[in-house]
Amino acid sequence: MSIKQQISEFLATEFPQSPCLIDDIGPQSAVVRYQVDQRALRPGGTVSGPVLMTTADLGLYAAILGEIGIVPLAVTTNLNINFLRKPSASSDIIGVCKLIKIGRLLIIGEVSLYSEGDDRPVAHAVGTYAIPPQQN
Amino acid sequence: MSIKQQISEFLATEFPQSPCLIDDIGPQSAVVRYQVDQRALRPGGTVSGPVLMTTADLGLYAAILGEIGIVPLAVTTNLNINFLRKPSASSDIIGVCKLIKIGRLLIIGEVSLYSEGDDRPVAHAVGTYAIPPQQN
Amino acid sequence: MSIKQQISEFLATEFPQSPCLIDDIGPQSAVVRYQVDQRALRPGGTVSGPVLMTTADLGLYAAILGEIGIVPLAVTTNLNINFLRKPSASSDIIGVCKLIKIGRLLIIGEVSLYSEGDDRPVAHAVGTYAIPPQQN
Amino acid sequence: MSIKQQISEFLATEFPQSPCLIDDIGPQSAVVRYQVDQRALRPGGTVSGPVLMTTADLGLYAAILGEIGIVPLAVTTNLNINFLRKPSASSDIIGVCKLIKIGRLLIIGEVSLYSEGDDRPVAHAVGTYAIPPQQN
Repeated sequence: MSIKQQISEFLATEFPQSPCLIDDIGPQSAVVRYQVDQRALRPGGTVSGPVLMTTADLGLYAAILGEIGIVPLAVTTNLNINFLRKPSASSDIIGVCKLIKIGRLLIIGEVSLYSEGDDRPVAHAVGTYAIPPQQN
Repeated sequence: MSIKQQISEFLATEFPQSPCLIDDIGPQSAVVRYQVDQRALRPGGTVSGPVLMTTADLGLYAAILGEIGIVPLAVTTNLNINFLRKPSASSDIIGVCKLIKIGRLLIIGEVSLYSEGDDRPVAHAVGTYAIPPQQN
Repeated sequence: MSIKQQISEFLATEFPQSPCLIDDIGPQSAVVRYQVDQRALRPGGTVSGPVLMTTADLGLYAAILGEIGIVPLAVTTNLNINFLRKPSASSDIIGVCKLIKIGRLLIIGEVSLYSEGDDRPVAHAVGTYAIPPQQN
Repeated sequence: MSIKQQISEFLATEFPQSPCLIDDIGPQSAVVRYQVDQRALRPGGTVSGPVLMTTADLGLYAAILGEIGIVPLAVTTNLNINFLRKPSASSDIIGVCKLIKIGRLLIIGEVSLYSEGDDRPVAHAVGTYAIPPQQN
């Protein structure tokens, strides 16, 4: 089973209601997809902020699992997100995630979020994750 | 109809799937409640990060509506959240929101999030909202 | 020597060029003062952003030293600052700092910054500090 | 006079004590340099946090001036910085800045900060700037 499949199965167990899929796992990076449906939308036809935050958080978590192995213990300690443009209501949200520091105790990554098919980011996030010491 | 009822009705229209309730609207402040049920939980018995982010964002939005009136045009531009402690799986999340700047174009507020009945915060967030110029 | 004096001496060694003073150290809290002079100003007569960031960072560091003892090893990992109002050019900057999480590995605090004599904050910051494991 | 020279002159007036130089101005981007000397260091031989924050803020400001023209009115509203690695005490700090949203009212950019000659970032920041409406 590929690392992408392993992480997908793990996340399906950890986040059973999540509509997020792993599109790709690379070196210190991941690409994830939030399948946008009616529940992800707000009146006026745009994707809700929590959907974008969820995608950012899950994408960084996937990139971390790809880097340190599948240990269910990384914990988000900080997420900072800037909302840049109104997402399309009819496209999936794609999160392109890159780890920028892999420390023993903290891992930090950034995410650019897009409406699929449009190369202007709809949001940008930076997240910090704590790795419990016993895992090191 | 009280301002609290007006904001509750407005938010029920804007965020029809949201399980958030308004507990209180005060001067430049609001208290909101996320009704935690099975969908809000993660394996291991804790409330998910997106639930906390959603509560912070909605609570600040409610405080802004209480301050500037019910105009459906405030847009979140930034949310920074720190996760402090593991929330209880069996308590609602309470968001205590306070606006710290009310400008013509930007409104900024902070939120402390609690598991109901425990006075140690589970998370703390700061959010920025843009108010479209035509509203001023 | 009082804890306030001890921390003041320590910070004077660690940050020899800093014009910051400790006004008070309390339980999980500190009040610090940046002595504003010509070098702290920008044209137009306001205190520069870096002065506010420096005060926030140093104030949280002082609060941490008051809590865990004077160990020169806490490291800032994240600082998020919102600039709220134009500071006065003729007043010191006062930072009122409160720790909101004291973990084994991470300590998180928030700071409200004021121009002395005005109770409307000029900035608000949240900072995260890593405590090296060997110190625990 | 090139745009780089114009911005350099403007910043020398706006921030007369700043040891920052403009290395490059490009489309929606800038590269800036903080000339590290004794005053920028902390005991133990590392560059201080405020130096990194100053470089991030000034670099984004330079990129904004390159984009919208030299109007002394952009105001920092938010800066979020993650400290990733200990900078070298003997190298300049280089800030590589990229604007990720250019709106009418808000401009948002990100910065990766390096010790010159090392391609692993020492810090990463995201900043938001408000553009006064009369400038649009």
